[in-house]
Amino acid sequence: MGTFSRAAFLAVGSELLRTPRLDTNSLFVASQLAACGVEMTEKRCIGDDTQAIANAVSELLSRADLVVVSGGLGPTADDVTREGVAAALGRKLHLDEELLARLQERYRRLGRSMPSIAARMAFLVEGAEVLPNPRGTAPGQWLEVGARAVVLLPGVPEELQTIFALHVLPRIGGKPILVRTLKVAGRFESEVEQRVSHLYHRFGREKVTILAGRGTVELVLYAETSSELEAMEHAFTEVLGEDIFGRDDVTLPQVVLDALKSRGWMLATAESCTGGMVGSALTQVPGASEAYLGGVVAYANAVKVRVLGVSEELLATKGAVSREVAEAMALGACALGAQCGLAITGIAGPTGGTAEKPVGTVHVAVATPSQLQHRHFRFGGSRQTVRELAANFALDLLRRVLGGKA
Amino acid sequence: MGTFSRAAFLAVGSELLRTPRLDTNSLFVASQLAACGVEMTEKRCIGDDTQAIANAVSELLSRADLVVVSGGLGPTADDVTREGVAAALGRKLHLDEELLARLQERYRRLGRSMPSIAARMAFLVEGAEVLPNPRGTAPGQWLEVGARAVVLLPGVPEELQTIFALHVLPRIGGKPILVRTLKVAGRFESEVEQRVSHLYHRFGREKVTILAGRGTVELVLYAETSSELEAMEHAFTEVLGEDIFGRDDVTLPQVVLDALKSRGWMLATAESCTGGMVGSALTQVPGASEAYLGGVVAYANAVKVRVLGVSEELLATKGAVSREVAEAMALGACALGAQCGLAITGIAGPTGGTAEKPVGTVHVAVATPSQLQHRHFRFGGSRQTVRELAANFALDLLRRVLGGKA
Repeated sequence: MGTFSRAAFLAVGSELLRTPRLDTNSLFVASQLAACGVEMTEKRCIGDDTQAIANAVSELLSRADLVVVSGGLGPTADDVTREGVAAALGRKLHLDEELLARLQERYRRLGRSMPSIAARMAFLVEGAEVLPNPRGTAPGQWLEVGARAVVLLPGVPEELQTIFALHVLPRIGGKPILVRTLKVAGRFESEVEQRVSHLYHRFGREKVTILAGRGTVELVLYAETSSELEAMEHAFTEVLGEDIFGRDDVTLPQVVLDALKSRGWMLATAESCTGGMVGSALTQVPGASEAYLGGVVAYANAVKVRVLGVSEELLATKGAVSREVAEAMALGACALGAQCGLAITGIAGPTGGTAEKPVGTVHVAVATPSQLQHRHFRFGGSRQTVRELAANFALDLLRRVLGGKA
Repeated sequence: MGTFSRAAFLAVGSELLRTPRLDTNSLFVASQLAACGVEMTEKRCIGDDTQAIANAVSELLSRADLVVVSGGLGPTADDVTREGVAAALGRKLHLDEELLARLQERYRRLGRSMPSIAARMAFLVEGAEVLPNPRGTAPGQWLEVGARAVVLLPGVPEELQTIFALHVLPRIGGKPILVRTLKVAGRFESEVEQRVSHLYHRFGREKVTILAGRGTVELVLYAETSSELEAMEHAFTEVLGEDIFGRDDVTLPQVVLDALKSRGWMLATAESCTGGMVGSALTQVPGASEAYLGGVVAYANAVKVRVLGVSEELLATKGAVSREVAEAMALGACALGAQCGLAITGIAGPTGGTAEKPVGTVHVAVATPSQLQHRHFRFGGSRQTVRELAANFALDLLRRVLGGKA
């Protein structure tokens, strides 16, 4: 085991160059390494080509002390990561009899005889330690090169993640970087950035990363000690207050569902322009049924009238995209048997806008046993952007109402 | 203008290494280049570091004849792509007076005076041609290095794409590769792969890429001539038949909405475990309102009873996840005022499964004026996977019913 500071990642696979498929293994590895104080300084994708792999590993090993290679460890002829890495290190490949026996045993357990090509997976680069793969066939390999190391991992994310957690992390030393993510909703990135910019100076610009979603903003804080992290979190929380809905892995739908559960309320939704996005996001949370009753996708006005009881006169006089209709929809959602109703109606575009109600106009309403809250937005961007902003700002309005802060 | 065959892509930006943000510019550039017969052979992400940029550009230029660099062209101190590329090529940077005047003019039009740091964007690498940026401030740069070229483009996707289309494509020669994507639904990847594997041998394994989604599979065919592409498409279509729902950029919701429109039918949805995902996917298509009425997120049984008219007895005797309830939900959806009803009920997990109805059990039903169709699935995977599979297999059942092939 060594102590590493600079890591590089190499994803092998022609599909990463020829198709719209993106490597996401590097994200997992980077975040795991960061937690050990190891910085990812470079990542690459190359095709299934022995010479290209050899070149890349040589170059990366000249600059990083830990090189993580994913993919190209399977049994087929285009899986040439073993050969490429051996070439880069000037080492030989040899058939490991014990590994071969384990592969044969694995196939036997699956009730199949091992195809002859599968023996390729039993070849090790000289000096490699085998990293067993409990979730698949191809094992990983750990190679020390002086004080540096090269790790070979399969490209299937769940296999890579399991081997990394079980066998790579224990081999990595270093001082952990502490990371805290503060999650903000109901504000735009530029607004958040402006309010916290003085804190960049105070703590150091490189200690804060701001990431904009559609309707949510994440502030990622990096610190070397827990007291530093606490001071940072305290300062950012003081500035952003109730705009922060949670920390780290928490999601806005989770927060909303938890707030509903703590009141013992059920929620019903009435969605027009978002067409089910809020329901879909809420039901992605396991156990959503404890606080989410369901709702209505009131895309056509006929559904607003028939299922939600919105009056035809209101629709005719105020229009479907109006405060009054949003409020009537929220009340209609409650009437499905919920204490709380959330309604969204808007113009997502690209057509359907008018001078008075341009594309991006969205009305949101929340009804509870004691109040009826409304907000009105004019979002910019594509149809999908307007819809995602509408869904997230609506969930955030509900969060604030449930927190007594709307 | 040269003729290029091998391209490499370099994304510059520390956020691409330190945060979960992925570079997607390389996907756009790779597909555009492929259409010109230029193959992407490598892509990399590195941080905002002059030396790292210089190393990467030197290495890439030794292997590729076209190097596309994105990001790091802005005005701030960490935008050092210009410096890194100049170092790699052994060239100087110089202030371009004409470019500076254009930048000042741009700020004037926006009603602001140009901040002094913005002058950084007027520096050119010796020998560069300016690639004007109609959508932003930082221009691109085109640099010839013998018969090879390095292109610098801003990292903002819409700016990069515009400059690429206007100023890079016209400078690239080569023989286009023809690409056709066949889109399959209602089948799993392994099944599709098995059925088409003999065609891999016939046309060449490297001419076909298979991409699995959740409930859809894409076959990407590459050819050098249109007659070759036609022959490939014909052969794959013969094998896959009605499992192919469309080509190239078409989506399953679009195909379903078009089939509804051609019959003059309106659709209503009744979603339980998918919680609005089908409604959300349908309403993502502009003009969905011509064929989609809306629907019900019938998450709780109370909503199934109250809004969809499912009988309490049926729920008690058959269970919410059953053929009978799915069919009753589809009929209940029609009763909202639609000719066609689509219903989904299932157990997405992670809890809620039983021996008889394990997690992943999903019932789908389609009702039309003349028929009632049902299908039953047992999907594997996470909650989100089960939900996405359920939504796509449900849309596909509807597609087949509308096409008269279910």
